[in-house]
Amino acid sequence: MLPETTQELVGIDEIRAAADRIRGHAVRTPLLDSPWPELLLKPENLQPIGAFKIRGALNAIAHLDPDVRARGVLAHSSGNHAQAVAWAARFYGVTAHIVIPDNAPRRKIEATEALGATVELVPVEQRFSRPEELAQQTGMPMIPPFDHRDVIAGQGTIGLEIDEDAPADLTTVLVPVSGGGLISGIAAAIAALRPDVQVIGVEPELAGDAAESKRTGRRIGWTPADTARTVADGLRTFSVGELPWQHISSQVADIITVTEDEILDATGRLVLDARLVAEPSGAVTTAAFLHHRDRLPAGTTVAVVSGGNIDPTVLRSVLGAS
Amino acid sequence: MLPETTQELVGIDEIRAAADRIRGHAVRTPLLDSPWPELLLKPENLQPIGAFKIRGALNAIAHLDPDVRARGVLAHSSGNHAQAVAWAARFYGVTAHIVIPDNAPRRKIEATEALGATVELVPVEQRFSRPEELAQQTGMPMIPPFDHRDVIAGQGTIGLEIDEDAPADLTTVLVPVSGGGLISGIAAAIAALRPDVQVIGVEPELAGDAAESKRTGRRIGWTPADTARTVADGLRTFSVGELPWQHISSQVADIITVTEDEILDATGRLVLDARLVAEPSGAVTTAAFLHHRDRLPAGTTVAVVSGGNIDPTVLRSVLGAS
Repeated sequence: MLPETTQELVGIDEIRAAADRIRGHAVRTPLLDSPWPELLLKPENLQPIGAFKIRGALNAIAHLDPDVRARGVLAHSSGNHAQAVAWAARFYGVTAHIVIPDNAPRRKIEATEALGATVELVPVEQRFSRPEELAQQTGMPMIPPFDHRDVIAGQGTIGLEIDEDAPADLTTVLVPVSGGGLISGIAAAIAALRPDVQVIGVEPELAGDAAESKRTGRRIGWTPADTARTVADGLRTFSVGELPWQHISSQVADIITVTEDEILDATGRLVLDARLVAEPSGAVTTAAFLHHRDRLPAGTTVAVVSGGNIDPTVLRSVLGAS
Repeated sequence: MLPETTQELVGIDEIRAAADRIRGHAVRTPLLDSPWPELLLKPENLQPIGAFKIRGALNAIAHLDPDVRARGVLAHSSGNHAQAVAWAARFYGVTAHIVIPDNAPRRKIEATEALGATVELVPVEQRFSRPEELAQQTGMPMIPPFDHRDVIAGQGTIGLEIDEDAPADLTTVLVPVSGGGLISGIAAAIAALRPDVQVIGVEPELAGDAAESKRTGRRIGWTPADTARTVADGLRTFSVGELPWQHISSQVADIITVTEDEILDATGRLVLDARLVAEPSGAVTTAAFLHHRDRLPAGTTVAVVSGGNIDPTVLRSVLGAS
């Protein structure tokens, strides 16, 4: 059991303020019909850098005091968050210093550098301590991947847009869960705007720490060795954050787990039947709809397709062509 | 040389009226950053049925007199237009009768039937005469694929949206050309709203009738046997329509042709680098940008990605995996 704190939940006013800050910079994604009756898709794979994380990074950096922002920003990540912070920092004309574990895929490191960030590779065991050290030395503000109210509020703008676009018979919003920033923001928006709609998280069975936490009512961590088993490489975080846990405890109805086969099946069907390139982490929600419909309320469901940065080898494989 | 008439060009007011009719029904597609500097993508592959044609079909059916519309609508097509008319007719609660040549791919026939349309298969030489006969017998209005001002005005709503979303340094809009309805509508909108921006058509070299027409100043037809050679199966129409030709003559700056290799290369790069599933016909504009940049003005270009209904075998092949 991990430590728990009591912080104020992120509120709808903070999410509306985030929407004002990122308007015209993040893509206002449409809500798409899908080939599957009663399922609508929210394609965050269409964002710059291919993932929703641009929203939280833009909002967090925009909300910094200008004098602080001018120092540049710090982040640690080996995935989409690194690219989101690099992209948003470049957008605001400040430097980004990204600490990445030296076992991260070469492709992800290069993508982050290509966005103009300074990348510092560190041994995996220093991936949290080194950024702290840098923050103290340089005064650069850290942009955390999920456990931060401005990041959560930024991701919550997806919830505002779902409310604007979804029909009256919407009953369910499916959201991938890793550190919990995305689902926290969306749940906060939906709780305020559509209190009868259930926000349901989706996780790989092989990285099911949030589902176990929700079931037991306590924030539980899995080991990195456990969560590393899933193909959904964006969902390997081994526990949800402290503030996300408060949202998940109070505003999320359920967390469903999906198998690796279900994830890969949904990834392929999204390409072939819905014309969307989703990474496995972004396809878990469609997998839940296609394979666990019995766990969902009747009526219209929105599945958040959180990102599209799929490894080409995995893509070929799900198309039955490897 | 084909007959030419003089009709009034479709104007911005008709396009604005079309936008009012289809708002909330067709997807308001965003303008996306691409991995290629100075190229923005307009992803019409995200529309229901996977192609821009939903816009023209919705507008044409919405604009019918309600008593006439109640009879149901007629169309002939073996491609995306058939599905667009079927989808739009179902949306308005009227029947669609679609005449399809009996050599059309099974997949396309089934997709049209799945949308609730009545499909009539006819020998390929009756594909124009049979719908005429039906129109006379039944009084059902025909929704033509491109040579109709309501269809052109519907496609022109893409031009309105490009104007709303594109930066001030936009210089070029690239549009696939087949029968010419899409480029006519977009050119009409851009001529009114951004008169300094060049609208440039793109065609497969193997179906280059519009490029030849533009070069010679006369509307020229190629044979179906000629145009059937290209992989871009949505661009095999063997001449542009009469009204489209008037728009192309006066409002389109140039028509560029691309090779089959360039089309397939662009199709693969759109999936792997831009996370967009485009059919080859929808990828020709990206092919023109990537391979014929020297023919384009300096500054920002928008490429219209017109559709995403790609054959799975072609998709696997462009991903280097067949």
